[in-house]
Amino acid sequence: MDSLTWVIFDIMGTIAFAVSGAMVAIQRRMDIFGIIVLAALTAVGGGMVRDVLAGITPPMALCNVTDFMLSIIIALLVSMAYSFWPYPPLNKNFMLWLYNMFDTVGLASFTITGMLTGLSREAGNPYVMPVLLGVITAVGGGILRDLMAHRMPAVLYKEIYATAALFGAVVSCSLQNYVDVVTMAWICFVLVILLRFSALHFGWHLFHPRADWHKRR
Amino acid sequence: MDSLTWVIFDIMGTIAFAVSGAMVAIQRRMDIFGIIVLAALTAVGGGMVRDVLAGITPPMALCNVTDFMLSIIIALLVSMAYSFWPYPPLNKNFMLWLYNMFDTVGLASFTITGMLTGLSREAGNPYVMPVLLGVITAVGGGILRDLMAHRMPAVLYKEIYATAALFGAVVSCSLQNYVDVVTMAWICFVLVILLRFSALHFGWHLFHPRADWHKRR
Amino acid sequence: MDSLTWVIFDIMGTIAFAVSGAMVAIQRRMDIFGIIVLAALTAVGGGMVRDVLAGITPPMALCNVTDFMLSIIIALLVSMAYSFWPYPPLNKNFMLWLYNMFDTVGLASFTITGMLTGLSREAGNPYVMPVLLGVITAVGGGILRDLMAHRMPAVLYKEIYATAALFGAVVSCSLQNYVDVVTMAWICFVLVILLRFSALHFGWHLFHPRADWHKRR
Repeated sequence: MDSLTWVIFDIMGTIAFAVSGAMVAIQRRMDIFGIIVLAALTAVGGGMVRDVLAGITPPMALCNVTDFMLSIIIALLVSMAYSFWPYPPLNKNFMLWLYNMFDTVGLASFTITGMLTGLSREAGNPYVMPVLLGVITAVGGGILRDLMAHRMPAVLYKEIYATAALFGAVVSCSLQNYVDVVTMAWICFVLVILLRFSALHFGWHLFHPRADWHKRR
Repeated sequence: MDSLTWVIFDIMGTIAFAVSGAMVAIQRRMDIFGIIVLAALTAVGGGMVRDVLAGITPPMALCNVTDFMLSIIIALLVSMAYSFWPYPPLNKNFMLWLYNMFDTVGLASFTITGMLTGLSREAGNPYVMPVLLGVITAVGGGILRDLMAHRMPAVLYKEIYATAALFGAVVSCSLQNYVDVVTMAWICFVLVILLRFSALHFGWHLFHPRADWHKRR
Repeated sequence: MDSLTWVIFDIMGTIAFAVSGAMVAIQRRMDIFGIIVLAALTAVGGGMVRDVLAGITPPMALCNVTDFMLSIIIALLVSMAYSFWPYPPLNKNFMLWLYNMFDTVGLASFTITGMLTGLSREAGNPYVMPVLLGVITAVGGGILRDLMAHRMPAVLYKEIYATAALFGAVVSCSLQNYVDVVTMAWICFVLVILLRFSALHFGWHLFHPRADWHKRR
C-alpha cells in the first residue's frame, strides 16, 4: 500500500467528515463538547469500524492521536466560524451546498482508505473485501453521526449516496491488475465525487417502490 | 461444527431478515438503494457483530459475497412484489403476520448460528459463550435495522422476543453432552419458533413494573 | 494491572450503569425483559466496545457470566423497587438526582477500566490509548442505552460529561510514572466524580456557538 496516498486520503476524509459532524452538531444546538464529540465520532468512527472488521486491533485511530486532534481542531474552527462570522448572513442553500461538498469529499476519501485496507489484507476474494470495506468505511462515520444526532441515516434516503461509493470501489477495483494503487485511488475519488454531484445537480433519484399498494382501490 | 447445518441456518436467517429489513424500508418509503442497504444490514449485521465478538476477523460476510448478494436479490424481489402485485390489496393484518413470521424465522436461525459459533470457540465456559453469542446474533441484526429506521428496537418492547432466543439457546446448550450438534440446532429452532408464535398468538406479555408510582395519590 | 482494583471498578461500574439503564427502561414503560436487556446493554456494552477495540476477543463479558448476571439481578431489583415501593411517592427531583448519581459513578468506574486496559496494551503511545479507551468505555454504554431508548445520547448535550472522563483520564495518565496503578485509579475516580458533580451542582455549561447567525437581521 502506498502510504503517502493513504495518508492524504485519510486526512482529507477526516477533515471533511469532521466539518460535516460539527455542522450537524451546531444545527442541533449542542455545546462545544457535543460538537467535538460528534465531529470526532464522524471523522474517526468509520475508520474504527473498518479496522475492527479488517482485524486490525487496536484501530489506528487509537494508536495515534493525529486524527482525534485534527477533528478537535476542526470542530473548534467550525464553531468559531459560526460564532464570529462578521459578514451578512449566508443563505441556507449555500450552507447546504457546503455541507454536501464536505460530506461528499469525506465519502470519496473514506471509500479509498477502506478499499486500500481491503486490498492489503490477503484473506478472501480480491474484489469482495476491498469493495465491501470501502463502502462500509465510507458510510460508517455518517451513520454514526446521524444515529447520534437522532435522525434517520442519510445513506437510507439520500440520492445516490452509498451507490456512488459502491460504483467507485467496483470500477477502481476491477482495474487492480492494470494500474497501480495510486491511480486506482484517484480514479475512485473522481468517480465518487462526479457521480454524487451529478446526482445532486440533476436531482437523480432511484426507483421508489410504492408502499401504498394495499391502499389502492 | 457441522457445516451443512450451519449453512442451512445461515441462509435461512439471511433470507428471513433481508425480507424483514426490506419490508421496514418500504414502509418508510425509502428508495431502492435504501431498501437494499437496510435489507443487507439486517441480514448480515447480526452475523458481523457475532464474528467480531468471537474474534473471527474479517467476518465471514466480508470474505464471501453470498450473503450480501442474497440480501440484494431479496430486497429487489420484495420491492418488485410490492410494486407489481396484481391482485386486490392484502390487508394490513396479513402483512403484519408475514413480517412477524420472517422476523421469527430469522431470530431462530441466527440464534443457532451464534450458538454454533460460540460452541466452536474453545475459550471460556461451554455454556455462557454459546448462549450469549446466540442471543446477541439473533437480536443484533434487528437492533441495527430498527436503529437505522429510527424507531425503538423491537427487542425492548416486543412480546417474548429475546426471551425466546435465550430459552432456545439455554435448553439446547444444556443438551450438548447428550445429542449431536444437528439435533441441538433443530431443537433450538423449534423451541424459539414455538415460544415466539405462542406469545404472539396468545398475547403473552411479561410483567410491566409501574413507572407511575410517583404519580400515585 | 492490579486485578483487584480492576474487579472493584468493573463491578461498581456494572452495577451503576445497570441501575441507570433499568431506570430509563422503566420510564419508557418497557416490560421486564426490555428492562433487563437495556440494563445489561448499558452495563456491559461499553466494556464490549472497549475489549473489541483493544483487540481482546472474545470480550471478557462473554467468557464469564458475572457481569450479565449482575445486570439481570440489578434490573429485577430496580423493577421490584419501582413496583412495591411502600412509602409515599418520592419526588421527581430526587429520582433525577439518583439517576445522575448512578450515571456518574458508572462513568468514573468505566473510565478507569478503559484506562487500565489501555495501559496494559503495549501497542501505541502510553498516553493516547489509555485516555481514548477510558473515554470511549465510559461513554460507550450510555450511548448504546440512549440510542436503544430512542433519545439523543446524553454525551452530546449534558453538562461536562465526556469532558469529566477525559479530564480524569488525562490527569491520572500523566501521573503514570510517579504513582502506582491503584493510586492512579482512585485519583481518576475522585476527579471524574468531583468534576461531574460540580458541573451539576453549579450548573456549569460549556460554550454554545450560535447556530442562528444566518437568521440574524
